[in-house]
Amino acid sequence: MAQNGNNRVGNNDNRILHNYFRSSSSYRVRIALNLKGLPYTYAAVHLNRNGGEQFQDPFKALNPQALVPVLSDGGLHISQSLAILEYLEEKYPEVPLLPKSIEDRAYVRQLGLAIACEIHPINNLRVLKYLTGPLGLPEEAKNQWTRHWINLGLEAIEAELARSPKRGRFCFGDTPTLADICLVPQMFNAARFGVDLSRYPTLSAIDAECNKLPAFQQAHPGKQVDSE
Amino acid sequence: MAQNGNNRVGNNDNRILHNYFRSSSSYRVRIALNLKGLPYTYAAVHLNRNGGEQFQDPFKALNPQALVPVLSDGGLHISQSLAILEYLEEKYPEVPLLPKSIEDRAYVRQLGLAIACEIHPINNLRVLKYLTGPLGLPEEAKNQWTRHWINLGLEAIEAELARSPKRGRFCFGDTPTLADICLVPQMFNAARFGVDLSRYPTLSAIDAECNKLPAFQQAHPGKQVDSE
Repeated sequence: MAQNGNNRVGNNDNRILHNYFRSSSSYRVRIALNLKGLPYTYAAVHLNRNGGEQFQDPFKALNPQALVPVLSDGGLHISQSLAILEYLEEKYPEVPLLPKSIEDRAYVRQLGLAIACEIHPINNLRVLKYLTGPLGLPEEAKNQWTRHWINLGLEAIEAELARSPKRGRFCFGDTPTLADICLVPQMFNAARFGVDLSRYPTLSAIDAECNKLPAFQQAHPGKQVDSE
Repeated sequence: MAQNGNNRVGNNDNRILHNYFRSSSSYRVRIALNLKGLPYTYAAVHLNRNGGEQFQDPFKALNPQALVPVLSDGGLHISQSLAILEYLEEKYPEVPLLPKSIEDRAYVRQLGLAIACEIHPINNLRVLKYLTGPLGLPEEAKNQWTRHWINLGLEAIEAELARSPKRGRFCFGDTPTLADICLVPQMFNAARFGVDLSRYPTLSAIDAECNKLPAFQQAHPGKQVDSE
């Protein structure tokens, strides 16, 4: 990969991932692109620099929501990480991220959404900034808030997976799916906020299995060009 | 429909929607079932009664997340409204909720997720209870919080749809999709919290079009057996 300046890395100008190293939803898409073997140019959007690069053009023209990630694929710009994952699954079906049967697909999506809809949105950067900014809460209250929602969500998913006959090395069977793609960034985020992950032995074992795979390793926030 | 007691209405014991009249995610699934013409038994789970019926068995055995809705379909139990919508789309493809082309499907999912992941989770009942409970915020701060996130989210979707050449009577074209199914409950919720919807003329026009359809009308919170 070549450094092009402007925090862009990669030579694939047909597929660009506008993202931020530490964003969980960006991390999800990086894993999916790696699993499917799809090369891309990494375009860093720094959420904490210049008042937030996500609020400035040209990024906001790509996504009025001012949220990373956005995948630009052959002229199409897609926001929302789960919409991107479903798009990749339909457009590039090789190395599937969802099982075959309708019932199993529902199960895997349900696990992924339990993270993407119930844990992550309550703890993303803009919400945490609102707690300490307009609401004037101290840093410790913010951290308690984060751990509260992460624990509540992970407890439920641990309970679900611990009892699941469908569990294998990964959330579903022995190949990674959309559920693992959502789980691993959430576990990383949980550790960052000091959540005691030993409470989640099933999730920790799956996380460890995922992190043995190069697709997950190379998507890790610490490995990105904009990592701090 | 017949009243069976226990807040159950309907004779279709093969398909049961465990839900709550005012829950936006429940409302989404009711619309989808109605659009697809799929009869179901309505099983009310009262989120504010008996300390929250979602925390008690038998509901929590169905869903350790203790969140409505859960769709029970022929013995399969699915949580997470968007997983349910995708399941219904795959299992009962007649009256599609997603367009045909991969690119358009990504666009519609992106709109739905911009509501389901970026607005609704930050304002659902358990988050609002945490603000006034553990964080000890006054009612007015809670309402400001809610309006803040709703306005932020709706502004972006208004901007997106106002410029979209794909918009028709509905978010995408002239038949309702998953995007409209997410939009209408969010608009209802916004009105309930006193958001000025005149700021969103495009969204208001689409909302009005949707609410002309019986499938949307019959899914309205005010029409449910547990409505208060």
